[in-house]
Amino acid sequence: MSHKYVYLFSEGDATMRNLLGGKGANLAEMTNLGLPVPQGFTVTTEACTKYYEDGRVIAQEIVSQIYDAMSELEKITGKKFGDVDNPFLVSVRSGARASMPGMMDTVLNLGLNDDTVEGLARLTDNQRFAYDSYRRFIQMFSDVVMEIDKSNFDEIMDKVKEENGVTEDSQLTAENFKEIVKGFKDLYRSIKGEDFPQDPKAQLLASVEAVFRSWDNPRAIVYRRMNDIPGDWGTAVNVQAMVFGNMGEDCGTGVAFTRNPATGENKLYGEYLINAQGEDVVAGIRTPEPIDKLKEVMPEIYHDFAQIAEKLEKHYKDMQDMEFTIEKGKLYMLQTRSGKRTAAAALKVAVDLVGEGLINKKEALLLVDPRQLDALLHPTFEPVALKAATPIGRGLPASPGAATGHIYFTAEAAAEAAKAGQKVILVRQETSPEDIEGMYAAEGILTSRGGMTSHAAVVARGIGTCCVAGCADALISESAKNMIIGGKTYNEGDFISLDGSTGNIYGGELPTEEPTLTGDFATLMKWADEHRRLAIRTNADTPRDAQQALEFGAEGIGLCRTEHMFFEEDRIPAIREMIVARSEDERRKALAKLLPLQKSDFKGIYEVMGDRAVTIRLLDPPLHEFLPHADSDIRALATDMGLTFEELKSTIDGLQEMNPMLGHRGLRLAITYPEIAEMQTRAIMEAAVEVRQEKGFNILPEIMIPLVGEVKELKYVKDVVVKTAEAVLEEKGVKIDYEVGTMIEVPRAALLADEIAKEAEFFSFGTNDLTQMTFGFSRDDASKFLDDYYEKQIFDSDPFARVDQKGVGKLMKMAVELGKSTRPDIKLGICGEHGGDPSSIEFCHSIGLDYVSCSPYRVPIARLAAAQAQIKED
Amino acid sequence: MSHKYVYLFSEGDATMRNLLGGKGANLAEMTNLGLPVPQGFTVTTEACTKYYEDGRVIAQEIVSQIYDAMSELEKITGKKFGDVDNPFLVSVRSGARASMPGMMDTVLNLGLNDDTVEGLARLTDNQRFAYDSYRRFIQMFSDVVMEIDKSNFDEIMDKVKEENGVTEDSQLTAENFKEIVKGFKDLYRSIKGEDFPQDPKAQLLASVEAVFRSWDNPRAIVYRRMNDIPGDWGTAVNVQAMVFGNMGEDCGTGVAFTRNPATGENKLYGEYLINAQGEDVVAGIRTPEPIDKLKEVMPEIYHDFAQIAEKLEKHYKDMQDMEFTIEKGKLYMLQTRSGKRTAAAALKVAVDLVGEGLINKKEALLLVDPRQLDALLHPTFEPVALKAATPIGRGLPASPGAATGHIYFTAEAAAEAAKAGQKVILVRQETSPEDIEGMYAAEGILTSRGGMTSHAAVVARGIGTCCVAGCADALISESAKNMIIGGKTYNEGDFISLDGSTGNIYGGELPTEEPTLTGDFATLMKWADEHRRLAIRTNADTPRDAQQALEFGAEGIGLCRTEHMFFEEDRIPAIREMIVARSEDERRKALAKLLPLQKSDFKGIYEVMGDRAVTIRLLDPPLHEFLPHADSDIRALATDMGLTFEELKSTIDGLQEMNPMLGHRGLRLAITYPEIAEMQTRAIMEAAVEVRQEKGFNILPEIMIPLVGEVKELKYVKDVVVKTAEAVLEEKGVKIDYEVGTMIEVPRAALLADEIAKEAEFFSFGTNDLTQMTFGFSRDDASKFLDDYYEKQIFDSDPFARVDQKGVGKLMKMAVELGKSTRPDIKLGICGEHGGDPSSIEFCHSIGLDYVSCSPYRVPIARLAAAQAQIKED
Repeated sequence: MSHKYVYLFSEGDATMRNLLGGKGANLAEMTNLGLPVPQGFTVTTEACTKYYEDGRVIAQEIVSQIYDAMSELEKITGKKFGDVDNPFLVSVRSGARASMPGMMDTVLNLGLNDDTVEGLARLTDNQRFAYDSYRRFIQMFSDVVMEIDKSNFDEIMDKVKEENGVTEDSQLTAENFKEIVKGFKDLYRSIKGEDFPQDPKAQLLASVEAVFRSWDNPRAIVYRRMNDIPGDWGTAVNVQAMVFGNMGEDCGTGVAFTRNPATGENKLYGEYLINAQGEDVVAGIRTPEPIDKLKEVMPEIYHDFAQIAEKLEKHYKDMQDMEFTIEKGKLYMLQTRSGKRTAAAALKVAVDLVGEGLINKKEALLLVDPRQLDALLHPTFEPVALKAATPIGRGLPASPGAATGHIYFTAEAAAEAAKAGQKVILVRQETSPEDIEGMYAAEGILTSRGGMTSHAAVVARGIGTCCVAGCADALISESAKNMIIGGKTYNEGDFISLDGSTGNIYGGELPTEEPTLTGDFATLMKWADEHRRLAIRTNADTPRDAQQALEFGAEGIGLCRTEHMFFEEDRIPAIREMIVARSEDERRKALAKLLPLQKSDFKGIYEVMGDRAVTIRLLDPPLHEFLPHADSDIRALATDMGLTFEELKSTIDGLQEMNPMLGHRGLRLAITYPEIAEMQTRAIMEAAVEVRQEKGFNILPEIMIPLVGEVKELKYVKDVVVKTAEAVLEEKGVKIDYEVGTMIEVPRAALLADEIAKEAEFFSFGTNDLTQMTFGFSRDDASKFLDDYYEKQIFDSDPFARVDQKGVGKLMKMAVELGKSTRPDIKLGICGEHGGDPSSIEFCHSIGLDYVSCSPYRVPIARLAAAQAQIKED
Repeated sequence: MSHKYVYLFSEGDATMRNLLGGKGANLAEMTNLGLPVPQGFTVTTEACTKYYEDGRVIAQEIVSQIYDAMSELEKITGKKFGDVDNPFLVSVRSGARASMPGMMDTVLNLGLNDDTVEGLARLTDNQRFAYDSYRRFIQMFSDVVMEIDKSNFDEIMDKVKEENGVTEDSQLTAENFKEIVKGFKDLYRSIKGEDFPQDPKAQLLASVEAVFRSWDNPRAIVYRRMNDIPGDWGTAVNVQAMVFGNMGEDCGTGVAFTRNPATGENKLYGEYLINAQGEDVVAGIRTPEPIDKLKEVMPEIYHDFAQIAEKLEKHYKDMQDMEFTIEKGKLYMLQTRSGKRTAAAALKVAVDLVGEGLINKKEALLLVDPRQLDALLHPTFEPVALKAATPIGRGLPASPGAATGHIYFTAEAAAEAAKAGQKVILVRQETSPEDIEGMYAAEGILTSRGGMTSHAAVVARGIGTCCVAGCADALISESAKNMIIGGKTYNEGDFISLDGSTGNIYGGELPTEEPTLTGDFATLMKWADEHRRLAIRTNADTPRDAQQALEFGAEGIGLCRTEHMFFEEDRIPAIREMIVARSEDERRKALAKLLPLQKSDFKGIYEVMGDRAVTIRLLDPPLHEFLPHADSDIRALATDMGLTFEELKSTIDGLQEMNPMLGHRGLRLAITYPEIAEMQTRAIMEAAVEVRQEKGFNILPEIMIPLVGEVKELKYVKDVVVKTAEAVLEEKGVKIDYEVGTMIEVPRAALLADEIAKEAEFFSFGTNDLTQMTFGFSRDDASKFLDDYYEKQIFDSDPFARVDQKGVGKLMKMAVELGKSTRPDIKLGICGEHGGDPSSIEFCHSIGLDYVSCSPYRVPIARLAAAQAQIKED
């Protein structure tokens, strides 16, 4: 008995989604529920996978099973495929596990040819209908199966209309359509060099193959990557008996949602067209009527449909998105699926369904996609204005939200204009740590280089500012203070608008709306907190970030990057003095100037965080990041510092590295200059003591030593930290608990985590660096070739956005197991960018981490994702 | 019963080297053999380790055991420690497992104080001897235990001599020595602020602790790193009853080898001094006599000593290095150990001992340190000239050998001068691939930047050229064509000399000697080949390298880097054309020009290698390495290429990367530009077919795809390679076997080696990159901080020189196991720099690799190391 690749609708059910795809499984389920579904069959996703394995050939056994299923359908319908007298016509549709725009959609009326069209005309006594159907089939088949551009056909239609002096399709006669069919077939022949296929079986196989092929088209690949859909799932194909909504005024077709997908309101929402096929609704040739109106026009049909809708929603326990057709006064269901909805609607539907007793809280939590929440936390464009606007370019959607403002090309100019009260957009080829002030001041940030984890993207997400990064369309000249994009030049001060959620860039000013966090949001978050095991912390470097994160529900700080504080105007000189110091003494003098500044930074953060844990990472970036690189800047700084240009230039040159990512940074700095770690520890501890004394908070500093690869490295720096911390406590005569831990971000640290755990009281996975080193990818450079990786289907997703569970994840699992073998109660967290990614959060949950830490604006997402991870595990 | 930390000589033996150190174990062994050894005891290496663990304190139980052992010795000798009438005096010496210069050496005459010195005088009836002994003790104790500079004491001696009008120590009287003792004690008090310690027990404990402490001094640390000695071994301390060679003319002291350590000749070799203590022989104050002369002066003593020497050599089955003292006509043995010897002597001794039937071949193979062989394969300086020369500077000994020549500061100038018949030394701040031609032309290479694995070092070792790298003393100006070093300026054309084995740089011309590979060398290599399991291949990019490697015994090529061929004058234009191509078409045109050149390169190599396997790696470095970076060079090239400066500059800028090591290189290039892999595969296969047809060789190309991290990457490129290879074989109508494999150099590839092995027929470990990514160290930049790591004892050795077995090695083991789980017969090798390092070779043997591949000049070393690995395992 050969493997089963084809299932009649009556043989499947909703649980078989992986095999039958979403559409096929739901058609089978509706069949089982006794709903009026035109019968058909599904060619499985396995058949698609096999098609690719076999080198893009549909195996003979699959072909046979398709023909067998066709015979079954013929028996059911009493019609025959290709029969001139009673022709059986079908639709062919793709249907993957997850809904996937970008793939081949639909071929209707398949089975028509020069003979059967006449049969159909006789049978329906409607020549016009038959030839209209045939021309539609030729056009769809040519377009989606044979990839002939649709506009070729439209031209022929237009010409016939013109010749006959009509403007609407509905005004065309049967004779007109015959002429059009002839024109379409001629066109087909002239382009493909052969006649339009007359054999219905050939039409069917070609269409099935076209669906399989479309799994692999570039748009589908991009969509999969954006939506975490594996490339090896494949798609199913649904072949279904045709019903016709275009056979007269007692016919029609429509789509509807069981609730309003924009607001979540519990009221049937949709539209329909009388005497039309499905594509007409989508194509926008005629304006459909709201579904309410059907109640008046076809009250029985409406009643039936409303009942079915209710039945389906109760059955699936979720808002449904349905397609139906009315053929000669009879209702047919063509599809049902979970309806796509806005974030606000998602929250309302989930909370309402619980209120209605249809689902419980856990089910409600699973109904909302955590990634959607982002949209609720950031400004958006006013929808009407957005709809009317055309993008002038597109970059990576690096940090969500909408922003509109005057463009400035340097951080200084942006900061100044913002101080003067302007809304500004910072436009840079790429940002660097020196631009921080301007980035804080801006409503939005646009860069022409860098990927989703570039400096601009990371900082922007951290501070919740809208950012479009790596827009290769934009030619940005910082010196000329202009940007050429879409053929137009924008000068300093001109308005542009950025959509950080889509990556779109608009010319001019687009009005924005502030987000409103509804009661449903708070309710769902509360439920999430009741169900999650993972704690949620935030990456925050300033009291402002910390405050924002607390409002979003953060339970502590998982990563406070001390270096970000160093770039501010009042401290960068001392940092630079420290770097160019010629002796330990000089260095200590410069550090002494930094101590009070760092201490006050930490006090500010402690005061916001109160009794919550605060993990502070010691200095991480290579020192050259704090120095200028352009000769003119070096000259100016040298003058400021009382050095010659040559002295400073030679210091800076000496700090240059071939591969700074693998260079003198992290705890390597503390090994060379232990006095830096001393100063930072002193600031951390003195601040903790003072805030405790002043505010009574029970501060628990967690001092994090970055970039460890060898336990002796950690021990050396930890000794410095502990000695300094104890000295501070001794001086102050206070007892405060503190912990010293490390980041697991170098592969060797993961491999030897049992040794590292001897010295580390906690691990925090730095998955940005761990991903870089495990793959050997520089995240600053990888965008150059990663597009080729997606295109050639080597990668499904960006390993910097989503934890690579197979490789990086294997190291993480090893580190968790080894770490616990030495120190069973070791505290485990993650503070890389992945800490805010739902699928990565689920992975962190599964390997037993205690918390994830993410940027403030990701905290709600993380709360929900953590709850979902726990619920899925239950 | 407490742990035993102290062993009497009579309680130990030679097998207890790890516990007692080399010296202690051999003193015990000689005691067991019944040889005349002054009795004593050894404080174990464990006591030293405990000393550090306890925070640099000698535990009370160890102190007690030392005192107990002293009591035992007092019983044996009938003397008492600190006894005024019959004082017991001892020496204190360090003794680690391996001989280790840089540690505290010796304190003699310990136990003397203001009282016992008088007792010694009475007992020996020799005031002069007693006070001479006392002043020696004060001086040695102050120097090595209390770290008071010896020159302070020398000044006092000189003053007394001057006052008394004498020039030699031997002319000083007892009174003079008393005065000197007084002066020494005053000096001690003035520097240390306390009296010279009079309590013998305090003297003893201070000396023991000084030995422990000296384990950790900077010179010892450096020595350990250079010699692969782990930092946690610790040292033992030997306390031994004094015998005196300086009590009169029937006394003496000496050192001797059982064979000549320079040549290996089987004849007692050494020297002695009458009426002297050991330090006098070393200090060079008097000129010692050759040991032969002792035969005439003290024939019985000589006879006894010669017999003991023979007995020891037979007992230890190796050439011995012995110390002895004659006290009043009686011979005492103070030490025996394996004698250090030159490479030539090592070979002769090993081969002779087999001939004499004393050892078998396996034992002989273990007697030679593989690292020593290097010296035999390269030119050396004529010894007399070398002894007379003073270095003007010192860099890293990056590639062994001696070279002398005229200096040139650009590769072009060096190549030109060499063509004109000059011997040249290429002097550069650092080299880059563009300098290859000049490097080939040079006798030696000197750089002021870069470490042991810098470009200059790697290439120089590969081609067997002497190289001193990273000489920070040298201020090199390539534009001014001069170098300032040791305060002197050397201009283009001036002579300098380089010793690549020591890193020393000499001004002027030093005569060199060519190496002669003696019959012993060939004999030992033959034995090595009989005993090793690992195959030895070579890294060779040219027929010249391949030929050299074959002469040294290579069995195949493990790494042929195709890119090295691209830098030659006749092909770099085509490469550059390929890089700046704007379309696949243009790129293919440029590649078509390269095809015949690559093919002829491969033919040249195949013709040399005959039937041996040749592993060819596809293009690896990032493309920007092939383009100039200075504006002037870009301008010139743009003109050559018919581009504008801006066009070329923008192409080059576009190729720049933040971290090129983690950038667009390796197979990532082949994924973006499969046509490059196609061209290279075609060249590899066409060359194989043609050489087979022309020469009848059975060529087995192994095509190696670098930098894989994900099996889908490998599959994509492998498909291109296989398709091309099959096409070539089809065209030519020939059947040739070939294999496609990959390098394991990205951590993820090691973690997922089971998947990778599905597509790879062989793995070659690229441990340079694997080390970089596992540690997160850029080898170009790590030298900036690795010195701090050695100094702070975080690392014992350079992970780029010796495989880090714990971390990188763990990944290698995983990769081997996972790879074999998928493909049990997978071929496994290593082609990183570590392939020529003996300890790394032993590791590769232990984890089951099939071969190691190293630079041609390392092949003999690898052959011996591989044999040793097998023998140690047997």
